[in-house]
Amino acid sequence: MPELRKDPIIGRWVIVATERAKRPNDFKPDQADMVEVMPCPFCAGNEKLTPTEITAIRAEGSQRDKPGWEVRVVPSVSPVLRIEGELGKCPHGIYDMMNGIGAHEIIIETPKHIDHLSSLEDEEVANILTVYKERILDLEKDKRFKYAMVFKNHKPAAGSTRIKHCRSQLIALPACPKNVKGELNGAKKYFDYKDRCVYCDMIAQELADKKRLILDIDGFVAIAPFASRFPFETWILPKEHSAHYTNINDKDINGLGRTLKEVMLRINRLLQDPPYNYMLHTAPYKRPKGGYWSTIDQDFHWHIEITPRLTRVAGFEWGTGFYINPTPPEEAAKFLREIKV
Amino acid sequence: MPELRKDPIIGRWVIVATERAKRPNDFKPDQADMVEVMPCPFCAGNEKLTPTEITAIRAEGSQRDKPGWEVRVVPSVSPVLRIEGELGKCPHGIYDMMNGIGAHEIIIETPKHIDHLSSLEDEEVANILTVYKERILDLEKDKRFKYAMVFKNHKPAAGSTRIKHCRSQLIALPACPKNVKGELNGAKKYFDYKDRCVYCDMIAQELADKKRLILDIDGFVAIAPFASRFPFETWILPKEHSAHYTNINDKDINGLGRTLKEVMLRINRLLQDPPYNYMLHTAPYKRPKGGYWSTIDQDFHWHIEITPRLTRVAGFEWGTGFYINPTPPEEAAKFLREIKV
Repeated sequence: MPELRKDPIIGRWVIVATERAKRPNDFKPDQADMVEVMPCPFCAGNEKLTPTEITAIRAEGSQRDKPGWEVRVVPSVSPVLRIEGELGKCPHGIYDMMNGIGAHEIIIETPKHIDHLSSLEDEEVANILTVYKERILDLEKDKRFKYAMVFKNHKPAAGSTRIKHCRSQLIALPACPKNVKGELNGAKKYFDYKDRCVYCDMIAQELADKKRLILDIDGFVAIAPFASRFPFETWILPKEHSAHYTNINDKDINGLGRTLKEVMLRINRLLQDPPYNYMLHTAPYKRPKGGYWSTIDQDFHWHIEITPRLTRVAGFEWGTGFYINPTPPEEAAKFLREIKV
Repeated sequence: MPELRKDPIIGRWVIVATERAKRPNDFKPDQADMVEVMPCPFCAGNEKLTPTEITAIRAEGSQRDKPGWEVRVVPSVSPVLRIEGELGKCPHGIYDMMNGIGAHEIIIETPKHIDHLSSLEDEEVANILTVYKERILDLEKDKRFKYAMVFKNHKPAAGSTRIKHCRSQLIALPACPKNVKGELNGAKKYFDYKDRCVYCDMIAQELADKKRLILDIDGFVAIAPFASRFPFETWILPKEHSAHYTNINDKDINGLGRTLKEVMLRINRLLQDPPYNYMLHTAPYKRPKGGYWSTIDQDFHWHIEITPRLTRVAGFEWGTGFYINPTPPEEAAKFLREIKV
């Protein structure tokens, strides 16, 4: 069972993999070998290479774990957290820990051996976004979980493996993550002072300013955030206030799909297929607890953060939490606005 | 002038380099070219390849910017912050920004073309640690600065350049960094509740437990922290409580030097010269402000965090602030304790 351990000073949680522990020789200094893993476990026809599917968008009459699907969700073969068991919270002297309970799922975005979400049809992207919503909602039923995060790692420099097949991941957690809490608390403070959502204010200013605006289509904006940590960092936000991604309707799923695809096309074209991550920041599950939970619907605003991985994070950033961004977001936005796709 | 921009939601500061802005083509997808830069600007005899020195430990009678030094401090040739100017704090609609005022210095640790601090003599390491203290104290006189962080990037994967000459860096900042504030606030909360320093309690538990203890010599401990974020993460702490590194005396500088050298020898041997960062976490400068400043001497405990860079941080970690560590700290400590050097 992996362990969840809490840093006693700043409250940061760490998942310690106690089962398949890595020894010193397991860390190869430069694993630049980019040879693809074949056969691809995520292609249609290779369903037996993955664990049994959790759910799928399938053609009528097609069978579970057989071809005929459009989007397929399977448990991770190397889950960072385990679905079975009790949380078993306990102290350990001055430290706190609990069992590494959670869900870790792989969302296979297409049956075809395609590397880029931006190569898919609009309808296919919308299917992926629908599956995100359904999986987050389904895991909400498990009262052990406080948060579900959907994210994508593209290319090894962004933490992916050597399998080049378009997919994203979902991890459901028994504790609300520190970074999410930081956003919730910040948004709550702003609302308490201004009686307005900070994200809504940000959208209004970006739409008026236009300098950091990349796209404004179908009810969504894509912006280069004012305090971008990374070159060409891009956020996608719904123009209409909404805290929970899971409240999105089908029309907006289509709009978000077109926005996401267009942004990814532009990033890929401009930066020549860079490594990147994206993360869906949605509100935590509603659980009977105090604090930010009570006002979260008004304070928070779900969004997607896309971060190309073009620079390396060094000691200064790790130590301080300051970031150094060599590309002003106004220039990043201009490039992304003007690139022809 | 670089800009300091504040994220309006979570209060994270970002340094945006407006002067030497990087354009899309400046990010090479895989700059694995590890060819060394020659001649080395940090070797004795090449002093004219760096800006004029700020200070140095020199043989009597030797001249500034000439050979004869042991440790030499120069301004960075590509500073992320500028020393001249006013802070010029100002709003920008809902956003906050100020000029990128700060100091960015390179501490050249040896006149010889050596890549490893652990290859230096004990006395040479002590000289480096003395210079850390002197530079932090000197920059404290500049009332614009709130914090000074000393750190080291070893190898490109840890954010270093292709110059293989042993050095560290110092950046003085006009705002207390978010991560430091997190530590200060956490330590303060613990003290408020327990009337004890959390770091002192941690040291006591690690000395009793011994499972995560790596070294216990000369008044210092090296431990694998309970909630290690990274494989083989190692912290060095003075056993005697002290908030400000700059209060260290000469005897303890020697002890710290031996501890740091021994830890680095073990990490290099065990992990075959891995990329790593280390960061000196000391208390912020005392400035007339409220909050944690008033009780910092009792709450906080300076330390050095050493983080080998063996794994990649991916979307999940970026999104949540959770870390996934594949090596339990108990095993990391055992390996580091038992390796022969």
